Amino acid sequence: MYIVNYKEREVHEVTVANSQKTTMRWLVGKATGARTYAMRFFEIAPGGIIPLHSHDEEHEIFVLKGSAKVLGGPEGTVAKKDDVVFVPPNEEHGYDNTKGKEPFTFICVIPLLEKE
Amino acid sequence: MYIVNYKEREVHEVTVANSQKTTMRWLVGKATGARTYAMRFFEIAPGGIIPLHSHDEEHEIFVLKGSAKVLGGPEGTVAKKDDVVFVPPNEEHGYDNTKGKEPFTFICVIPLLEKE
Repeated sequence: MYIVNYKEREVHEVTVANSQKTTMRWLVGKATGARTYAMRFFEIAPGGIIPLHSHDEEHEIFVLKGSAKVLGGPEGTVAKKDDVVFVPPNEEHGYDNTKGKEPFTFICVIPLLEKE
Repeated sequence: MYIVNYKEREVHEVTVANSQKTTMRWLVGKATGARTYAMRFFEIAPGGIIPLHSHDEEHEIFVLKGSAKVLGGPEGTVAKKDDVVFVPPNEEHGYDNTKGKEPFTFICVIPLLEKE
């Protein structure tokens, strides 16, 4: 086993769907033991956004901090600290923190669909 | 998609390996959309423990609150808030909060090995 603080993982800029002010860290990825699913850490800074997009991977999300408008759900949908978000495969989704005052951070688990 | 506060999920007592003062909630399980992996929420109250045990499922864990002694790793290993813990399949592990003053809570993702 291993134990690591999430801040020790490398920070990557997120560019999917023209995301703004968003970073991601692979907490458990292919290179660090993941077999069929991977755990990532996302942070959308105040003013940031992951615009509406979709893909084959479903999302199992747990919100750690802040709140954001959820795109793709009913108008006015918000996700906030302690919320669980489930996004099925190929369903459009996004997270809008452009009006936020604090970072919106969450854990996002995805399947590793491309087997090596 | 759906969004739900984790506290809305049903609480189950954890009995594996004679665990004490430990509860679990299925955040995303088979009944709520999980396909190949499931997200659960664990809480070990002060004085509680999940003793040493092992199983086929690997664990991808993110610690939300508190700290606990980790069983199965090197002597003195502790997991605390913001730590990631990865436990490979069939490796002995456990979490000891018997000396703790606050709850130890964490997200734990497992593969769904028994396909329906």
